[in-house]
Amino acid sequence: MIRIFVTGGTFDKTYDEIRGALAFDDTHLPEMLRLGRSRVEVSIRTLMMVDSLDMTDADRELIVRHCGQCEESQIVITHGTDTMVETARAIAAGVQEKTVVLTGAMIPYAFGSSDGLFNLGSALSFAQVLPPGVYIAMNGQHFAWDKVRKNRETGVFEAL
Amino acid sequence: MIRIFVTGGTFDKTYDEIRGALAFDDTHLPEMLRLGRSRVEVSIRTLMMVDSLDMTDADRELIVRHCGQCEESQIVITHGTDTMVETARAIAAGVQEKTVVLTGAMIPYAFGSSDGLFNLGSALSFAQVLPPGVYIAMNGQHFAWDKVRKNRETGVFEAL
Amino acid sequence: MIRIFVTGGTFDKTYDEIRGALAFDDTHLPEMLRLGRSRVEVSIRTLMMVDSLDMTDADRELIVRHCGQCEESQIVITHGTDTMVETARAIAAGVQEKTVVLTGAMIPYAFGSSDGLFNLGSALSFAQVLPPGVYIAMNGQHFAWDKVRKNRETGVFEAL
Amino acid sequence: MIRIFVTGGTFDKTYDEIRGALAFDDTHLPEMLRLGRSRVEVSIRTLMMVDSLDMTDADRELIVRHCGQCEESQIVITHGTDTMVETARAIAAGVQEKTVVLTGAMIPYAFGSSDGLFNLGSALSFAQVLPPGVYIAMNGQHFAWDKVRKNRETGVFEAL
Repeated sequence: MIRIFVTGGTFDKTYDEIRGALAFDDTHLPEMLRLGRSRVEVSIRTLMMVDSLDMTDADRELIVRHCGQCEESQIVITHGTDTMVETARAIAAGVQEKTVVLTGAMIPYAFGSSDGLFNLGSALSFAQVLPPGVYIAMNGQHFAWDKVRKNRETGVFEAL
Repeated sequence: MIRIFVTGGTFDKTYDEIRGALAFDDTHLPEMLRLGRSRVEVSIRTLMMVDSLDMTDADRELIVRHCGQCEESQIVITHGTDTMVETARAIAAGVQEKTVVLTGAMIPYAFGSSDGLFNLGSALSFAQVLPPGVYIAMNGQHFAWDKVRKNRETGVFEAL
Repeated sequence: MIRIFVTGGTFDKTYDEIRGALAFDDTHLPEMLRLGRSRVEVSIRTLMMVDSLDMTDADRELIVRHCGQCEESQIVITHGTDTMVETARAIAAGVQEKTVVLTGAMIPYAFGSSDGLFNLGSALSFAQVLPPGVYIAMNGQHFAWDKVRKNRETGVFEAL
Repeated sequence: MIRIFVTGGTFDKTYDEIRGALAFDDTHLPEMLRLGRSRVEVSIRTLMMVDSLDMTDADRELIVRHCGQCEESQIVITHGTDTMVETARAIAAGVQEKTVVLTGAMIPYAFGSSDGLFNLGSALSFAQVLPPGVYIAMNGQHFAWDKVRKNRETGVFEAL
């Protein structure tokens, strides 16, 4: 059983047609798993629904606490890409003996051309086979939390 | 570097609008990797473009030979689901010391609602971290080649 | 109020993932109208769900009878493209004083890249403003039933 | 030949993956017409690429002048929905003897679930058959410019 924590990010951005702006509504995770015909046993919980630039220390503490307290030892977290590495660091400092994989998307899933479905398949797979530790899974690759940074110019995660 | 061998299957079925029927054209793999924003280094080669029910022993020999001869030790094969297990068995008999992951789709990628993008992200990830052996990656799960069968009634791969 | 008669055709083809083949299931019309945010008052009725190459004279009689007997004077019919002109001729012979617009698609709506949504918007619009008669609406154009043929080589409807 | 003027609006909003925000890039009109397999002869010109809430009087003058001066007597304008009626009024005051149809979308075309393709098929069809005048085509319906308002609460165009 894999625990999935949803925290928002581009992954789950949607288009508010009355205001004509990006917004957060419910998570698309269940729909994505259905579309991907996933048969991985998962338990999904939405912890927050925020742009990762707006994520506070209190938000990160909440994520760390949930990772530590949940029964599952394999965890996938959907997260905005801008501060994904920062949250990974907080989890690494507070959680032991679990495989935690953070993932996200550059394009909202609600837009047809999303990398989210690809990344979700990738993150769930890495979570099943990587040894305990905190990882970032993006672009089909995985990085230990302290060996990666996001290049803000190109939008790409790069190995340090 | 991961080697990707394309053999056809539902993954790559397309719609021939003149004949009004399913058909095979070029593979969608490069487009899917671009859409998924994959940054995994891959080398793609189309070996054949067939429905796996039409795959012959000669076709399987060709796949086995290419798996054995290519330089890469991590291989992903896109394949029709109906005889995926049979091809996996042939590879297991003929190829040693390589991680070979077969994957496919229940719905063509060209149809919007494909599980192909999810499975591709999954297969590429498993290929990077699983020890040498022959595996099937479907539905977010992975199975050793001799521990799985496709349930033709439900379309689902089940552990033996 | 516009009456919509569904008869099948490429418009409504779907992919049967167990058999790995094209199939007909329920019509996608309601979903398409919702997606297009249509506010045209319509009443939808599925008369049959067939490939138009398989349509019989009895099928055409049924369509003609329904066009004649329904209360609405504006009618849109979704239909396979191969024999669309033949059905239009039968309706022209049997129905007077109504605006009947036949439309279809070259690519199934269930495939992401469908021309169906475009054609549906077009057909509903033509049905509201054209004088009584039987028309074919394809590719953003409209043709009187006796001034058009389908070019089987190119898949395009051409004026005679 | 129908002239299409592009002015921006939700129709053409796209997602800037570096900034994580909505943006305008090139128009999607040619791609949409290709997807819809449109065979209507059109000539496309982008006049501006703005949110219609940011449209100025000078912008409207420019649109009116282009409508008056172009050779075509059938014109489709893609436009943000918020001030579509205001622009329609300006055109009605400055352009005679032409059929001008404004249309737009509630959801960007770049998002999979767009009403844009449906509306485009509708607007092109109305432009071919309505008598000279200025119209708004949304939701499969058409309204004379002075008989409609946008309900900002529901996002729907309503007859006055």
